Amino acid sequence: MVLASSLCQGACVEPTMGKESGKVVVLDFWASPYAMRTKIALREKGVEFEVQEEDLWNKSELLLKSNPVHEKVPVLIHNNTPISESLVQVQYIDETWTEGASFLPTDPQSRATARFWADFADKTISFDGGRKIWGNKIGEEQDKGIKEFLESLKALENELGDKSYFGGETFSYVDIALVPFYSWFYALEECGHFSVEAACPKIVAWGKRCVERKSVADSLPESEKVYQQVLKLRQIFGVEECSKH
Amino acid sequence: MVLASSLCQGACVEPTMGKESGKVVVLDFWASPYAMRTKIALREKGVEFEVQEEDLWNKSELLLKSNPVHEKVPVLIHNNTPISESLVQVQYIDETWTEGASFLPTDPQSRATARFWADFADKTISFDGGRKIWGNKIGEEQDKGIKEFLESLKALENELGDKSYFGGETFSYVDIALVPFYSWFYALEECGHFSVEAACPKIVAWGKRCVERKSVADSLPESEKVYQQVLKLRQIFGVEECSKH
Repeated sequence: MVLASSLCQGACVEPTMGKESGKVVVLDFWASPYAMRTKIALREKGVEFEVQEEDLWNKSELLLKSNPVHEKVPVLIHNNTPISESLVQVQYIDETWTEGASFLPTDPQSRATARFWADFADKTISFDGGRKIWGNKIGEEQDKGIKEFLESLKALENELGDKSYFGGETFSYVDIALVPFYSWFYALEECGHFSVEAACPKIVAWGKRCVERKSVADSLPESEKVYQQVLKLRQIFGVEECSKH
Repeated sequence: MVLASSLCQGACVEPTMGKESGKVVVLDFWASPYAMRTKIALREKGVEFEVQEEDLWNKSELLLKSNPVHEKVPVLIHNNTPISESLVQVQYIDETWTEGASFLPTDPQSRATARFWADFADKTISFDGGRKIWGNKIGEEQDKGIKEFLESLKALENELGDKSYFGGETFSYVDIALVPFYSWFYALEECGHFSVEAACPKIVAWGKRCVERKSVADSLPESEKVYQQVLKLRQIFGVEECSKH
């Protein structure tokens, strides 16, 4: 993370911290579930922002300068100050644009529960977790990937229970952390020849419910487009093409 | 994570959320850097707590019931409600015992910076990261582990700069997240035949400064004791003994 002082080299105006004004830019890649989180959070708060699409095989100078530690999207730039890591960004957005409902509940125990499950989603339903499915041919490694993926989703489904969203009736922090991966389900199913809905019907119903929200619909790509992207990735990494069911 | 409702099965009194009263228990293992975070945070806030030492090869029913998802220490139990994941616990402690200074600064940008570096420490200076050093014999894999470990520490040293603590003059969130690993430095150095201080003198000076605090001194074990534990782990995992310099 480069702080404003080092980015601006003393020449630009010191950014106004915590104020609701100022230009907001997201360094983005459309298929990144992590970048989707940031866009959903901004849209939930009604924040206008610019999107700068990155070529991940030829990253911009701005991306490399803004996130020198990880060199990854998304980067949220607010008042010329870059912020890295999607869950850090979601919390920053929540704490900066404070009008309307917070993404986190108010009591410490419920906040801890939300943070626990967002962290769990981050560690298990991740790009790397999905790659064990799309990045392997049919066989033992892929089966292991599917098993781990579904076990993690089932733990999340168990936590969701019969609630509308993870926080109850309110779309909030854990929903924002997890729902981007819903747009990858179809691609994973096609590559792994399995059904998420058969294993986790409540999670799929929850995903459909989330996509009815404009913030989510505007931030998640079409499943078919993600699948085509995954096919490209499989070609790049030398994995056989997924066959259609 | 098991919520109070499922732990208590309706028979026990509903816990009082967010109140400063109530029994506090830490399910602990003395050498766990993660459990050290929780104990430091409680001691910084002046919270009295009981420690229940776990045998990690024969975990207690209470641990398995309190943290069924990960089955790991530390678990923080407050008012009969278990909370898992050390950084979630540190934030819970900060938000529950609100007298005195918060572990996080107030402005969103500084909070984001602190969360970024705590997350970075979590991902890089971790038990798994250390294991690449103590869990390998001298050779290529261990060299790779040392290189990654020092690169991550150097990034943290760069962020620390000439400040007393990561948050400036105040011992706070990133310090709590990182300083437990300082107690493992000696063991890693002995196993890997390298010097942390030669590569990162400011980090070592910072570690010494942190250990002057009672909260840290009371929570970190002796380096020699950690080293003896690592030797036991190496025997269990079939790695040759570290030779003394």
